[in-house]
Amino acid sequence: MTKSSFALRRCRLLGLLEERKSGAAVFSHLPNVRYLSGFTGSNAVLLLTGRGATLFTDPRYELQAAEEVDCPVKVVRGSLWPEVAKLVRRRKITTLALEAEHLAQAEFARIAAGLGDSVTLGDVSGLAERLRSVKDPHEIEAIRRSMDLCGRAYLQTLKKIKPGMTENGIAAELEYRMRRLGAEKPSFETIVAAGERSALPHAQPTGSRLEANQLLLIDMGACLDGYASDMTRVVHTGRAPRLVKRLYDAVLEAHLAAFAMVRPGVTCSAIDGAARKTLKRFGYDQYFQHSTGHGLGLEIHEAPRVGRLIGDVIEPNMVITIEPGAYIPGTGGVRIEDTVLVTDRGAESLTKVPKDFLVLES
Amino acid sequence: MTKSSFALRRCRLLGLLEERKSGAAVFSHLPNVRYLSGFTGSNAVLLLTGRGATLFTDPRYELQAAEEVDCPVKVVRGSLWPEVAKLVRRRKITTLALEAEHLAQAEFARIAAGLGDSVTLGDVSGLAERLRSVKDPHEIEAIRRSMDLCGRAYLQTLKKIKPGMTENGIAAELEYRMRRLGAEKPSFETIVAAGERSALPHAQPTGSRLEANQLLLIDMGACLDGYASDMTRVVHTGRAPRLVKRLYDAVLEAHLAAFAMVRPGVTCSAIDGAARKTLKRFGYDQYFQHSTGHGLGLEIHEAPRVGRLIGDVIEPNMVITIEPGAYIPGTGGVRIEDTVLVTDRGAESLTKVPKDFLVLES
Repeated sequence: MTKSSFALRRCRLLGLLEERKSGAAVFSHLPNVRYLSGFTGSNAVLLLTGRGATLFTDPRYELQAAEEVDCPVKVVRGSLWPEVAKLVRRRKITTLALEAEHLAQAEFARIAAGLGDSVTLGDVSGLAERLRSVKDPHEIEAIRRSMDLCGRAYLQTLKKIKPGMTENGIAAELEYRMRRLGAEKPSFETIVAAGERSALPHAQPTGSRLEANQLLLIDMGACLDGYASDMTRVVHTGRAPRLVKRLYDAVLEAHLAAFAMVRPGVTCSAIDGAARKTLKRFGYDQYFQHSTGHGLGLEIHEAPRVGRLIGDVIEPNMVITIEPGAYIPGTGGVRIEDTVLVTDRGAESLTKVPKDFLVLES
Repeated sequence: MTKSSFALRRCRLLGLLEERKSGAAVFSHLPNVRYLSGFTGSNAVLLLTGRGATLFTDPRYELQAAEEVDCPVKVVRGSLWPEVAKLVRRRKITTLALEAEHLAQAEFARIAAGLGDSVTLGDVSGLAERLRSVKDPHEIEAIRRSMDLCGRAYLQTLKKIKPGMTENGIAAELEYRMRRLGAEKPSFETIVAAGERSALPHAQPTGSRLEANQLLLIDMGACLDGYASDMTRVVHTGRAPRLVKRLYDAVLEAHLAAFAMVRPGVTCSAIDGAARKTLKRFGYDQYFQHSTGHGLGLEIHEAPRVGRLIGDVIEPNMVITIEPGAYIPGTGGVRIEDTVLVTDRGAESLTKVPKDFLVLES
């Protein structure tokens, strides 16, 4: 990542701001601040005007900001906003857009009071996110490496999984291997759910033990150079009953149908619809209660959302998950998830781990 | 944790609400939702009125909420707020307090529009946090176990640390051992900083290698049954130069001075002042740029903040960190941090790992 990429992104964003006739904006959502400046710390806001950008952070990050950031940095004790207000007044800015979807209402009210009547506030929510939804080559490479690392950690761990291990113990092994392979951290809390608990689509791992003849659902992702990956696989310990095999087949078909829809120009709802229609054919559509996927990048959930009523159009170089599932209470759940890159004409799955139904012999 | 504890907490909170003449409140900050209902998922709001509480969540969490929560649960597709508004209208609630410090301004505006003019909105920010700052016996026990686990993982890892290991590699070992000992996850991103990088008080670990004759700063915490712990230790590989020893002694004295101040009735600023005064005696006060500590519990940073201008009064059963530090650019940094329980007459450090200056012989 060269520092000039950040300047380029800021230029693009200024272009979008001008279209909206907004002269200046402040970004406070940290993934947006990072995207636009390179800053990776936990406290900063970025003021962006036609005259350039300024990053505000606190003294803990003085050295770090100097290393990472390609625009002027102002180090502030206490709340950053009064200093932002000073600079806004000094530059005689009269319209200022804030991230109203990310700033707390009480904070927003304090900022408005601090700026006074001479500044008209607007909302810049979603604008940086729109840029971020289409990845540049550096970002695609980072997600590809993040996914590759995650897949390797999964396959290394799979060899060691045996009945008797706890869900927590399996999660520990998965995360350790991601770390050892270079991940900064998991991109979200690793889900390991055995038996009936696999029907809880967002189960946290527990101390309960994997048994023979059970479903085991693993949903995991790595964070590498700030970029997320995301995959879900389901295996079975010992020979699976017919109902479980049918459930797996249905979800796999739904996954492949959704994946086959991914290409520039289609809507998110069309991709989601392909998964849902397939599950309906098996009579499982009522067991699929979440969306088919989501964008990912600096955050694990980003634009676009690949859901039922989402008219957003897929573009080249978006990266989204495809993750249909079906969860039958009392029986168990299956979800099959890949991280997928939209190419010029179709899609490439960045998740290279096979999707065949795998039986772990004990 | 018995489910009746949640009902008790809600009763206490209703008492505080009545003092404020507010009839009903909605909690949307997830740690507050968890504290008041037991729900551990990632999407929920809790409506609390004199007639009882209702939790709103989405279909992913239907089974989980039924297991965890002791009040009625309403499962909602899409945004939860329109359903909250329906119930508010049905119950003829006319004043409703929201968490304005946690709700995004844009969301707040949508909620206000959805409720219409018949409901007056208030701000309930900080009220649950105030209750949460004083821990009940169950919580103290959870933090004690979380800290104990974290300390054991640190000591187990310390035996293996050698020059040549990367910061990332050391962080991987620390986190793996926490997980293996039963932690759900680290309570924050583990900090491992070697050499001059120890002067970055919030450094993320990198691929750079630990060398002989270097400072090594480790700041880590576990999350166990939802409760955080937090500790920092600094060791030196090989014999330390005099300047480094003096820096360590200064920070240790500052730590002990601050700890000695902790008892019910003192202000947070008095504790902070004790650390700062000690560092000043060594001429290091300008190198101490952050606060002396913070509360912790369901979140890693909670009320009270133990900082310079904070008049909050310490109460029995608060749990706070004591973590003065001094960071000399180009040389390195030292921080010594314990998780500390306020007792009836003084304080007990829950961090049992010794604080002597430790030299790792290679």
